[in-house]
Amino acid sequence: MSLLTVGSVAFDAIETPFGKTDKIVGGAGTYISLASSFFVENQNIISVVGSDFPAATLSEMNSRGINTDGLQIKEGEKTFFWSGKYHNDMNNRDTLVTELNVLEHFDPIVPKPYQTSEYIMLGNLSPSVQSTVIERITKRPKLIAMDTMNFWMDIAMDDLKKTISMVDVLIVNDEEARQLTGEYALVTAAKNILAMGPKYVIIKKGEHGALLFSESQMFFAPALPLAEVFDPTGAGDTFAGGFMGYLAATDDITFDNLKRAVIYGSAMASFCVEKFGTERLLEVTQIDIDLRVKKFNDLSSFDLKK
Amino acid sequence: MSLLTVGSVAFDAIETPFGKTDKIVGGAGTYISLASSFFVENQNIISVVGSDFPAATLSEMNSRGINTDGLQIKEGEKTFFWSGKYHNDMNNRDTLVTELNVLEHFDPIVPKPYQTSEYIMLGNLSPSVQSTVIERITKRPKLIAMDTMNFWMDIAMDDLKKTISMVDVLIVNDEEARQLTGEYALVTAAKNILAMGPKYVIIKKGEHGALLFSESQMFFAPALPLAEVFDPTGAGDTFAGGFMGYLAATDDITFDNLKRAVIYGSAMASFCVEKFGTERLLEVTQIDIDLRVKKFNDLSSFDLKK
Repeated sequence: MSLLTVGSVAFDAIETPFGKTDKIVGGAGTYISLASSFFVENQNIISVVGSDFPAATLSEMNSRGINTDGLQIKEGEKTFFWSGKYHNDMNNRDTLVTELNVLEHFDPIVPKPYQTSEYIMLGNLSPSVQSTVIERITKRPKLIAMDTMNFWMDIAMDDLKKTISMVDVLIVNDEEARQLTGEYALVTAAKNILAMGPKYVIIKKGEHGALLFSESQMFFAPALPLAEVFDPTGAGDTFAGGFMGYLAATDDITFDNLKRAVIYGSAMASFCVEKFGTERLLEVTQIDIDLRVKKFNDLSSFDLKK
Repeated sequence: MSLLTVGSVAFDAIETPFGKTDKIVGGAGTYISLASSFFVENQNIISVVGSDFPAATLSEMNSRGINTDGLQIKEGEKTFFWSGKYHNDMNNRDTLVTELNVLEHFDPIVPKPYQTSEYIMLGNLSPSVQSTVIERITKRPKLIAMDTMNFWMDIAMDDLKKTISMVDVLIVNDEEARQLTGEYALVTAAKNILAMGPKYVIIKKGEHGALLFSESQMFFAPALPLAEVFDPTGAGDTFAGGFMGYLAATDDITFDNLKRAVIYGSAMASFCVEKFGTERLLEVTQIDIDLRVKKFNDLSSFDLKK
């Protein structure tokens, strides 16, 4: 049940209506692996940082069972940096700065022990980096999931579609699903995405929950209605990490277990937005998670029979 | 378990990306009573139309157990008329024409047999008409629910708040909940609305489902993801009709039963949008409803235990 995460480990500077941060640690790979570390004792990560990246963060990841042998540290280079500002409704954000730095020429080297990973979560990165990782895996994994974003649809649609055809689960948000397929209705968009290759597609709708589709089944997971969304950064990655962590830990890829995984992913994401960056994730306990998942259950369960 | 609906019986002319209609029968009272007629054998309606209103529609209502003794027919006057146009996303519409006609001086007379109604659904109307009906009921009903819209918040907020304080359930959409309370987060908005008097508040989020709140509980019902929303007119009223029809039929106002009622309301609304106006509602069978409700159950149920 070995889990491999591929994704950026980076610096973010975030401004929301509740405040702003200096450079803090962020990146899809960070959020994914932190979230999945609550489910799996050991996992691997492939990423790249510059020599400006704090060693303490890598130690923190190691202490949570995240093996960083595949995380390259580029001497004399700078870590990927993103800065953004959220507006009042928290659904829209402006990117203020993007400095690719070490990501610009990232060659995702896959260490030998990683090459037989059974569960692979490809965080949002260039589709060619994502497909390179898949090509470097020597044994077909049980499940490969990938995230992406509209940026790649704008500049590398062919590459993206090739990579999508190689994975089992595509995780996108509603706007990305629409842009990818040219279809407005999400059921139709999902159908088109399944025709591109994946067996499952998850369409995230932010505060409106998430939809999981297979060719013959459909599942809807609510988002927890929150009084305050403090900082949405990383919520989608945290969802993916909870989802894949749960699947890898339970080693069961039936639709019923994917449904549970979506609920665990949603629960993890609901923590992420409560504080800036990874702050809340770093404090969460197993009991918090159990209680949060129970809340999701209470929120959406009903009994048709009186 | 007597059910009373108060609401407009009207003409609509609708334009959607799928086509346009001439004047067809619409109105909150029409949709509510039609939807609830699938749950209760007999019910009463208070409304007003002009002498231009087709007798055939009243016969159709009567044949479905909707007693129209409280539906006033104003000789020589014209029925309320609304015309609107939906845009591509179907979430926004422009009102092209509003002719109040008979609604302008509507005095909601409550026939004697209606005065002991146990369940009352007040469709969207001026808050003073809604409160007049409540004042004319001689015995406190088991449950009064009301719908409203932002128009009344703009021009009659005090009247509206007074009426809200007299009911048990307020049914609004997300934008209305925000305007009514000045709160963006729906959990906070719901809390504020409960403080205005109602024991329950339902916040409809269109294609994103509906939330039901009591002081201590919260329930989320998904909307059925549809490939095509043909015409959203009346969906909210149909939801309210299914909700109240189910409650009146089961005569049980526990939170667990309100959850079921929200699911039945959502199921009825999912039919409404499949064709123009009331067309689809008029064809629906009991078997259709059972299958649709099962779909909602399949869509949102999961089992946390493996």
